[in-house]
Amino acid sequence: MGEIEDRLQQRGLVLPAVLEGRSERAVIYDLVCVAGDVGYVSAHGPMDGSRVLINGKVGDHRAGWLSQEVGYEAARLAALSVLASLQAALGTLDRVSAWLKVLGFVSVAPEFTGMSFVMNGFSDLIHDVWGDRGRHASSAVGVTELPFGSPVQVEAVVALN
Amino acid sequence: MGEIEDRLQQRGLVLPAVLEGRSERAVIYDLVCVAGDVGYVSAHGPMDGSRVLINGKVGDHRAGWLSQEVGYEAARLAALSVLASLQAALGTLDRVSAWLKVLGFVSVAPEFTGMSFVMNGFSDLIHDVWGDRGRHASSAVGVTELPFGSPVQVEAVVALN
Amino acid sequence: MGEIEDRLQQRGLVLPAVLEGRSERAVIYDLVCVAGDVGYVSAHGPMDGSRVLINGKVGDHRAGWLSQEVGYEAARLAALSVLASLQAALGTLDRVSAWLKVLGFVSVAPEFTGMSFVMNGFSDLIHDVWGDRGRHASSAVGVTELPFGSPVQVEAVVALN
Repeated sequence: MGEIEDRLQQRGLVLPAVLEGRSERAVIYDLVCVAGDVGYVSAHGPMDGSRVLINGKVGDHRAGWLSQEVGYEAARLAALSVLASLQAALGTLDRVSAWLKVLGFVSVAPEFTGMSFVMNGFSDLIHDVWGDRGRHASSAVGVTELPFGSPVQVEAVVALN
Repeated sequence: MGEIEDRLQQRGLVLPAVLEGRSERAVIYDLVCVAGDVGYVSAHGPMDGSRVLINGKVGDHRAGWLSQEVGYEAARLAALSVLASLQAALGTLDRVSAWLKVLGFVSVAPEFTGMSFVMNGFSDLIHDVWGDRGRHASSAVGVTELPFGSPVQVEAVVALN
Repeated sequence: MGEIEDRLQQRGLVLPAVLEGRSERAVIYDLVCVAGDVGYVSAHGPMDGSRVLINGKVGDHRAGWLSQEVGYEAARLAALSVLASLQAALGTLDRVSAWLKVLGFVSVAPEFTGMSFVMNGFSDLIHDVWGDRGRHASSAVGVTELPFGSPVQVEAVVALN
């Protein structure tokens, strides 16, 4: 078991099953694509295998919408799903030497502009586990709809050793 | 003629004219930007030169919206437009040694969440022509509006030899 | 002072204060993440430090929306904010040897499809200052909402020396 896996365990973080939402397409579609010392990670939502853990749209303080705190939790769960895919693709998360770039899409109600807060759910977890090597460029945008009715989908570029 | 061009011909796939929608801006804007062994491809829609082949928004089972099958076809045509730009920039598609990452934006009706199905139109074609080297990380999101009223726009990162 | 800084001065371009909108998160979030000879730049809007210079959504010819010319100016200001972050991260803008890829999100009214025109505000400035080394792949999409109520947010990938 790797050092990063140790840190996950120390924090009580358990990885979900690897994303299966498009498993029937697995022959054409990679959750992680490795190109030398760079790994490109497909967008992931708050999933456990094929099960959607949180769905809906974020729009604080209005009935029928998720609060931004629930959005933050969805981004945190998306990070765990990304880690499950990286571990499956690479064997151990220790091969992820640094995080370079994260792009987060948040499904939002009109007028909701707190998508950066939502995306902190992803970045906080990565920073907690990787420390300074977990610092990354980050963008957050608010969109109309996301696959599976997910409130958040995050793609990433990581450095590999 | 390259090996990839042979495969296109065997499949009866004819590339459209190179995207011209922003040709007046050509001095500042590259359809493909080469950086060593990586190529960054600007977003392309279902275009033949300056002609929009499919426009509208995807929202299955409702009047006035495109079906997801038409969205799939639009993504397939976007792939052919990307190939036309890569061929023009690189001389031959054989220089594309692998596909790394694809990001697809689908212009959608509210409640439509089948954007991953739509994006398979792009990925299926790439996988059919490049085989395993055509496997790539892929993200799909649903947005409000796209240039030219296009139902889909896809950008890509490819490995070059 | 570097050569690029000279060019900015010759054109009367003054960089804004470095983006501070998420400064309380600075420990986990990088405006620029350097990975060897590639720099990943987080999305920036038309900001001067923590001050939003232009907000609203773009939707030409309708009351209550920004014109596409104001959108163009917002994208130009976003470019200056990106340059401020690159200068702060790298010491001098001369370390940016080429621009590779730009992805622009424009907050739009329904039916507005001129997001490519808006994004030219970013690309024109970069090309004016860097010349041919400023040519880059570019994508533009129209989204629902952006952080700070910004009309435009642009992320970038640059080559470093």
